[in-house]
Amino acid sequence: MAVFTDTFQVKTKGFCDAVDITDKVQTSIDKSGINDGIALVFIAGSTAGITTIEYESGAISDLKRTIEELVPQNREYRHNLRWGDGNGFSHIRSAIIQTDLSVPFADRKLLLGTWQQIVLLDFDNRPRNRKVVVQVIGE
Amino acid sequence: MAVFTDTFQVKTKGFCDAVDITDKVQTSIDKSGINDGIALVFIAGSTAGITTIEYESGAISDLKRTIEELVPQNREYRHNLRWGDGNGFSHIRSAIIQTDLSVPFADRKLLLGTWQQIVLLDFDNRPRNRKVVVQVIGE
Amino acid sequence: MAVFTDTFQVKTKGFCDAVDITDKVQTSIDKSGINDGIALVFIAGSTAGITTIEYESGAISDLKRTIEELVPQNREYRHNLRWGDGNGFSHIRSAIIQTDLSVPFADRKLLLGTWQQIVLLDFDNRPRNRKVVVQVIGE
Repeated sequence: MAVFTDTFQVKTKGFCDAVDITDKVQTSIDKSGINDGIALVFIAGSTAGITTIEYESGAISDLKRTIEELVPQNREYRHNLRWGDGNGFSHIRSAIIQTDLSVPFADRKLLLGTWQQIVLLDFDNRPRNRKVVVQVIGE
Repeated sequence: MAVFTDTFQVKTKGFCDAVDITDKVQTSIDKSGINDGIALVFIAGSTAGITTIEYESGAISDLKRTIEELVPQNREYRHNLRWGDGNGFSHIRSAIIQTDLSVPFADRKLLLGTWQQIVLLDFDNRPRNRKVVVQVIGE
Repeated sequence: MAVFTDTFQVKTKGFCDAVDITDKVQTSIDKSGINDGIALVFIAGSTAGITTIEYESGAISDLKRTIEELVPQNREYRHNLRWGDGNGFSHIRSAIIQTDLSVPFADRKLLLGTWQQIVLLDFDNRPRNRKVVVQVIGE
């Protein structure tokens, strides 16, 4: 039984940019030498999120539209009054979608569906260089 | 310390069908022989979700109404233009609700509330036979 | 490798009260003696949730507004017809935000962002004394 803590960087454009990080998470498992367990994918930050979706341009576009409708960018947020950085909407989107995702793996392979990818969503209002943590635990 | 990978099948009707899978997850823990740890409940697919709710017909009906309001079925989705299978709404609902749920257990019992059940939500637009993975990890 | 099950109590005011529980989760890790692993934060109940957000009054106020807009308190819920306790909205909010959050830790420290706190949201319609479970697993 072992724990392997891996991190990798992802450059994003912000504004709900969606980046497929499935291969990077699989690489973390490969590096860990662990055969079966849980890969916890976590982004240390309060303006991004992690989820799964079929990573094709139509579904990504649909997801962005829904998120914009549920938590619109252009309205007043009290967070903005405090800090003036204008990313109040980013914080709320992150709190709703959330920054953690746990995926099981067996025989060193992520147990995802055929059309299911792990996606980093960057809700911030500027390009970012994100650090993603993958905590691999198992045996 | 050990990892036990279990899977079970669930037949659903699609269209936000909600199935109580608490007993099946508890059975996975029973089979594992692990006393204390984490049960990661995961659905390998991009048109379903896992959450907890009090599994009674009123609350389930309320949840379905809210999901329909947040991500309506009958509107245009770009995903549909690509594939023509008409389940664009299913993908977005899955990305929002998400496909993973981690529940702690101790003394071989899930640490759920009295009125809290683990529920599979099938967002697809047709009946499905779903495979649920339970990754049990602990000692 | 070890599992350490900890619990702590949190008094809340209900009605989307948001309580920063980051220090309490860190204390659970401290008590566990485990250096690296996963802290699963879970609330055993069907009318509360766990997420992360920058815990400052503006962002918290914005989050409460969004949750009220997505799942309004003052409308008819079928759950209320059944039980008469008037907290149908609380159940739906809990099912959407969800009751689990997994956070990685290394060298005995939670790997959170600088402005990212772990927050208990109590969606119930009255003050509650909540029990939070922290399942610490690692080595």
